[in-house]
Amino acid sequence: MAAALTTPAMAAIFAPETHVGQMLRFEAALARAEAQGGIIPSAAADRIGDCCRVERFDVGVLFEEARFAGTLAIPLVRQLTEQVGEEYGRYVHWGATSQDAIDTALVLQMRDGLDLLIAELLRLCATCAGLAERHRHTVMAGRTLLQQAVPITFGLKAARWLAMTERQVRELRARRTGSLALQFGGAAGTLAALGPAGVSVATRLGAELQLTAPEMPWHTERDRIAAIAGALGIAAGAMAKIAGDVVLLAQTEIGEAAEGMAPGKGGSSAMPHKRNPTDAVASLAASRLALGIVPVVFSAMAQEHERAAGSWQAEVVAIPDLFRYTAGAVGRLGDALGGLEIDAERMRGNVSLDGGALMAESLTMGLALHLGRPAAQRIVKEVAERATAQRRTLHAVALADSRVGAVLGEAKVTEVLDPAGYLGSADVFIDRALAQYAALREST
Amino acid sequence: MAAALTTPAMAAIFAPETHVGQMLRFEAALARAEAQGGIIPSAAADRIGDCCRVERFDVGVLFEEARFAGTLAIPLVRQLTEQVGEEYGRYVHWGATSQDAIDTALVLQMRDGLDLLIAELLRLCATCAGLAERHRHTVMAGRTLLQQAVPITFGLKAARWLAMTERQVRELRARRTGSLALQFGGAAGTLAALGPAGVSVATRLGAELQLTAPEMPWHTERDRIAAIAGALGIAAGAMAKIAGDVVLLAQTEIGEAAEGMAPGKGGSSAMPHKRNPTDAVASLAASRLALGIVPVVFSAMAQEHERAAGSWQAEVVAIPDLFRYTAGAVGRLGDALGGLEIDAERMRGNVSLDGGALMAESLTMGLALHLGRPAAQRIVKEVAERATAQRRTLHAVALADSRVGAVLGEAKVTEVLDPAGYLGSADVFIDRALAQYAALREST
Amino acid sequence: MAAALTTPAMAAIFAPETHVGQMLRFEAALARAEAQGGIIPSAAADRIGDCCRVERFDVGVLFEEARFAGTLAIPLVRQLTEQVGEEYGRYVHWGATSQDAIDTALVLQMRDGLDLLIAELLRLCATCAGLAERHRHTVMAGRTLLQQAVPITFGLKAARWLAMTERQVRELRARRTGSLALQFGGAAGTLAALGPAGVSVATRLGAELQLTAPEMPWHTERDRIAAIAGALGIAAGAMAKIAGDVVLLAQTEIGEAAEGMAPGKGGSSAMPHKRNPTDAVASLAASRLALGIVPVVFSAMAQEHERAAGSWQAEVVAIPDLFRYTAGAVGRLGDALGGLEIDAERMRGNVSLDGGALMAESLTMGLALHLGRPAAQRIVKEVAERATAQRRTLHAVALADSRVGAVLGEAKVTEVLDPAGYLGSADVFIDRALAQYAALREST
Amino acid sequence: MAAALTTPAMAAIFAPETHVGQMLRFEAALARAEAQGGIIPSAAADRIGDCCRVERFDVGVLFEEARFAGTLAIPLVRQLTEQVGEEYGRYVHWGATSQDAIDTALVLQMRDGLDLLIAELLRLCATCAGLAERHRHTVMAGRTLLQQAVPITFGLKAARWLAMTERQVRELRARRTGSLALQFGGAAGTLAALGPAGVSVATRLGAELQLTAPEMPWHTERDRIAAIAGALGIAAGAMAKIAGDVVLLAQTEIGEAAEGMAPGKGGSSAMPHKRNPTDAVASLAASRLALGIVPVVFSAMAQEHERAAGSWQAEVVAIPDLFRYTAGAVGRLGDALGGLEIDAERMRGNVSLDGGALMAESLTMGLALHLGRPAAQRIVKEVAERATAQRRTLHAVALADSRVGAVLGEAKVTEVLDPAGYLGSADVFIDRALAQYAALREST
Repeated sequence: MAAALTTPAMAAIFAPETHVGQMLRFEAALARAEAQGGIIPSAAADRIGDCCRVERFDVGVLFEEARFAGTLAIPLVRQLTEQVGEEYGRYVHWGATSQDAIDTALVLQMRDGLDLLIAELLRLCATCAGLAERHRHTVMAGRTLLQQAVPITFGLKAARWLAMTERQVRELRARRTGSLALQFGGAAGTLAALGPAGVSVATRLGAELQLTAPEMPWHTERDRIAAIAGALGIAAGAMAKIAGDVVLLAQTEIGEAAEGMAPGKGGSSAMPHKRNPTDAVASLAASRLALGIVPVVFSAMAQEHERAAGSWQAEVVAIPDLFRYTAGAVGRLGDALGGLEIDAERMRGNVSLDGGALMAESLTMGLALHLGRPAAQRIVKEVAERATAQRRTLHAVALADSRVGAVLGEAKVTEVLDPAGYLGSADVFIDRALAQYAALREST
Repeated sequence: MAAALTTPAMAAIFAPETHVGQMLRFEAALARAEAQGGIIPSAAADRIGDCCRVERFDVGVLFEEARFAGTLAIPLVRQLTEQVGEEYGRYVHWGATSQDAIDTALVLQMRDGLDLLIAELLRLCATCAGLAERHRHTVMAGRTLLQQAVPITFGLKAARWLAMTERQVRELRARRTGSLALQFGGAAGTLAALGPAGVSVATRLGAELQLTAPEMPWHTERDRIAAIAGALGIAAGAMAKIAGDVVLLAQTEIGEAAEGMAPGKGGSSAMPHKRNPTDAVASLAASRLALGIVPVVFSAMAQEHERAAGSWQAEVVAIPDLFRYTAGAVGRLGDALGGLEIDAERMRGNVSLDGGALMAESLTMGLALHLGRPAAQRIVKEVAERATAQRRTLHAVALADSRVGAVLGEAKVTEVLDPAGYLGSADVFIDRALAQYAALREST
Repeated sequence: MAAALTTPAMAAIFAPETHVGQMLRFEAALARAEAQGGIIPSAAADRIGDCCRVERFDVGVLFEEARFAGTLAIPLVRQLTEQVGEEYGRYVHWGATSQDAIDTALVLQMRDGLDLLIAELLRLCATCAGLAERHRHTVMAGRTLLQQAVPITFGLKAARWLAMTERQVRELRARRTGSLALQFGGAAGTLAALGPAGVSVATRLGAELQLTAPEMPWHTERDRIAAIAGALGIAAGAMAKIAGDVVLLAQTEIGEAAEGMAPGKGGSSAMPHKRNPTDAVASLAASRLALGIVPVVFSAMAQEHERAAGSWQAEVVAIPDLFRYTAGAVGRLGDALGGLEIDAERMRGNVSLDGGALMAESLTMGLALHLGRPAAQRIVKEVAERATAQRRTLHAVALADSRVGAVLGEAKVTEVLDPAGYLGSADVFIDRALAQYAALREST
Repeated sequence: MAAALTTPAMAAIFAPETHVGQMLRFEAALARAEAQGGIIPSAAADRIGDCCRVERFDVGVLFEEARFAGTLAIPLVRQLTEQVGEEYGRYVHWGATSQDAIDTALVLQMRDGLDLLIAELLRLCATCAGLAERHRHTVMAGRTLLQQAVPITFGLKAARWLAMTERQVRELRARRTGSLALQFGGAAGTLAALGPAGVSVATRLGAELQLTAPEMPWHTERDRIAAIAGALGIAAGAMAKIAGDVVLLAQTEIGEAAEGMAPGKGGSSAMPHKRNPTDAVASLAASRLALGIVPVVFSAMAQEHERAAGSWQAEVVAIPDLFRYTAGAVGRLGDALGGLEIDAERMRGNVSLDGGALMAESLTMGLALHLGRPAAQRIVKEVAERATAQRRTLHAVALADSRVGAVLGEAKVTEVLDPAGYLGSADVFIDRALAQYAALREST
């Protein structure tokens, strides 16, 4: 079932063979950087580069041997050395340590993963922006603690989704720029095997891979990785808020939203009438799994000395799962929102469901201008309770109440009880979210 | 790298095709149970049973379709119905819901998984018991907050590992007996589609699968699953305690234990002299990943109404990972302890490393009988500090101290400062752990 | 706000002064046990016992000094020694280590805490049992993925809550019996300071405190503690399932349940008509906080050598919070269910809300006996979709469908579309839960 | 013990009365903002401001009532209204909802908390910078998987601590600027009660409190809060890395670092010679507790509609604990590093402990220039194993090896085996960390 909780594109970025491929990319780039610095012969770098193609390696065997060796880099470097051959084999992996290759490969994968997530989130923004515009005037019940509170518009809800999704784009972009860094330190982070050339090789290697060469290696300082993990977890959490809203709106008794229909989608084996919010549910599941991984990465920051005994080895397994599930959370929500059917009539109907009780605050505020809030609250509470007990509308009971009548005429009562007239700044908020989105699209 | 953090046997139990196979086992057993109850024709049950073989299905396609349908049961039941054919296809999955098949399949997988873990833990017990016996008299430093405290024996440490591992066997056995239950409730847990026959079919179905038929379905009451998850997490945590001790004992500067050598094992690509505790490290990593999953399962208990929207879908992905990583934590620790080399000489040497400072409590207790604990503590603190400052042994400084001399003669001082004479009840504790282990082996 | 998420009784059990009091209880019992064994004078034990009263100590100062000393036991033992005075002060804490006193005190607190939780859960069982009996015939919609599925009864839902809560009682009782153990090992778990008398003192000390004296100390083998933490987490998770159902049922648009009203309860500062499910919400919040602590305890199992550097110190802070929040989750849910108002009429109304679409499975099963399940499903799917599109009831459209008419007469259609007639084994399940509850009350 | 795991200053910021005080600050500022906008009389704002002093309120009673009311704002607003009196009481809390007051108060507390953490982390940077400079040439063993690998300097280790701590300062500063935002939305986030004036009141209110007035309210979009929680968790995790290193260096058998001594600090009740790394241990414990809270906050992002039922209520309890424990992790580590005693002689001794085996890579690289890495590795592996087996130094065995002699003379062997000569770019990395720190201090 796990495949349903990611996307094929993200699965490819974090496939085992892609990881090996990125490790080979590191080895090739290292050889080039060292050849540029005159540390190894240019011909060696050429030969190494030629051999650094993943299809030359049996990925299954590599992972098998890695189990025994402790890291994937050991069998890979050995096999690569063999492939390169007698003359230049000696220059393979020169001055590097296993973790340099593995961490940098993971960073390159994370870069691709972030790009993919950003693109998916932007697509989600577009969908939310469309909903916000289209439903700017679609009045619905605002609900607090799942109780109807005061009216809002569905456009505002979508604008809030949009604004939150936009922020995730900004956060992931910031991490892409600020938290991805080359790993290159040699055995214990001094680059000793390269003598005085370490720093210049690191600079060249960073340039080769288009990665920031940081102030120093970070073998056991994992805060950058944790920051990326945190950003993904928050993005997954944001998806859960939106997907949860979809599921709640799709409840039979509320019926304000439904995922788009397609043959075979969201049905039930036993209940042919059902129209399950399958995509939103999958997004929620993926989000839960993504969020479960973040603490593994965070608590793995406690790494010993110059290389960790257990934490790092857990982290490199956890990170790919985190990207996979976050992609699932975003992707499946994208599917859910992409075909979302909004029932504006039902929304309107639900607003008046409880005899218009959710207009109580509006009535309170209308009275409060004359009577003060405490007195207004007291009166409206009584009116609302009477309406409930007598199964009449708030409008009817309010009109019949002499205290209300004393300050507000019938027209005014009707006016303050019109949901469409009690939407405050909803429109401004929608405009702001859309304006920010426009700015986001223009930036990169 | 994830493959290194499980075992092939556990990977097989939780492979996608095994899951499909167990779902088919459910469908076949359901048909038999219903045929016994006269609900469907016997010939239908036979035909269904014939078709319920995983090799008849394209597992990849099933998972592909599951993504869209929302659950794996929907495409599986459809394909099975087709395979069974016109005449009896109508009786496939009769009265059941998707979750019945998926949950029961998972329960059957968990049963196999528990059996495997129990066997592996028992193997670990045997190893620990061997170490406890063999090193009953191997004196080493007891360490609190990673500081030498008072002497213990390595046999006692191994006996503590043994006792904790034994407890995990008992816990997992208890969960195997008490927390695995048939899932069978139909669309919303009433078995309505079976009319009055629901309960008797459930009983027969449980018997067919050798599973407890519980008092009622538990579609959204997941405490049994959580209890199993908790037990696995604790077993994984127990492994981390032991593996952590191995890593600490294997430190270059302590050198009291080392994992067995084998060509290609635990080496370093850059440092040929290194002998990394690779298996213990892998156990620690697997343990961290296992522990990360437990909260996903626990928090997934908050399930809505009669079927959850997200929590359950996360749980069924999380549980297999939990079994996989727990197996890795147990298995890799088994590898580590299986070939563990103990350096008794180095242990003895470390005991005297600090001038015998870890015998300070023994000296305190020797004096305390005469002077009371507060005075004895004061004197020994001074003696110990003097020994440290002057880089002399505790023995030498104690002998030279007039207050010590006033109550203890030279022979007595030597006696109270002999680590082998200050082991208290260590031997009794070893005996007890071994006796419990003997009892555990005899029970099942 | 944290106070709202526990109960006063649990807060008292885990108050700082209670912890100190339980440590003093350990010290007094230790002295008695040692006097019985002739290790210290009886008069010393008497004098120590007299001084072991928490009101003699300044708890604030103790905690202040503990910050510096590293453990609470160090200042406590020093102050107790002073209080006992010159003659017998030397016998205070004889042969014990700080962790012995702190762990045993925590175990005593956990015993009280478990007793309290068990009592509260039993009270909850009584409430659920009452609801199950009272609403045995209250038909409501069963909901899967928050969509109406097939009918159930509210009695069945309450019976499921009951069965799960019962299981929590059993689990906590099992932990109370099996996972609480005396901690007594001396400096590094050998009881060396007591020479050959260690084990007999341990046995006597266990008897004094009515605690199991385990096979050996468990300073760094924390699986018993983790097992208790796991059980509490699962209990908290179980509460979240139930509380979540309450919140969902209380939604304005569903309106099937409401928490009892009281002046000042569940109101809103801005919306006088609101009737928030305040207690259920508090239970959910407390549950989330409790569940957040479990992984802290589980991951703290990785403890170093003979005393941990950090994990144990986190655990002793985490455990009290876990008990507090679990008590809050149970207690606030008890409040929610205690006064729960069920609107059976609304439940009935919701069942027919969607034109009776949730009876589709029943119609399918009715047809399936004649046409086979696949054909029946196809027909009912069409009928259901037509009903939705035309906003007619399933009953009306089914009657008009010639294929339905061909096999079922009007009376039969009406019969299979009656929710009260499609409840399967709901009644049996309720009986079973009640019978188990009766058995639970009789056992202890 | 929890008090030992925070700092008094942070405890004060998150004390219950401070929370009430910040809520009152919100109410006073709201009144002023509304008076400026002509929505309420200036005299009302003055009177409200006068009453918004925490000492006028019984905080205990407020929390007691909050338990019942569901939020703290309800009793607070009621009491404040009473205090303000008949004439102006009606203007209290005008247009706001409970969550506006509570969230904004929490934001104000978080701002103070972030400032405090930033200051503490800068102090820690200063300490690390001092260590990095002072120990620039203090050679020690670099350790990977807790095995000696190649030499490093303690200055480099401290520089790595410094660089990671610096990054935490930058991250927290970024959150202080970017993630703190006014909460102000009224009942369901539309500010409807303020009619068209909502946005301008929000702007003025933000200015009053010096808080960003965001594009719209964020009642159920909690990504900003989660981002702050993530940053704190990562800071706490960073502390765990450093504190863990201190504990490992302080091991009796390694003895390279010790926390400063003070009377009564870090002692043991049973072992007077012990010198426990008490502060580092407390930092580790606090870090574990802090990290345990992050997932509570992250998973609480799944909030329903316009106000959450449970998640938010958990979050507002979790956040203060997160700040408290993170402060403890930082503060206690500051204590540990502040008085840290480094034993450079012991470091040097440990480097030669294993016969200089950790110089193997250096020897390999020396040979590799002539023989290629594979051949060099083979030779050095043999040499190193012979040295271990014969208990001779790597230097002695290497000199005696003919293959080594064939390419390197005695002087060259001695040179490549000198730890101080194999430090690669350590010095450059130290310089870079110090330069970044200098830049950090100048920025704000």
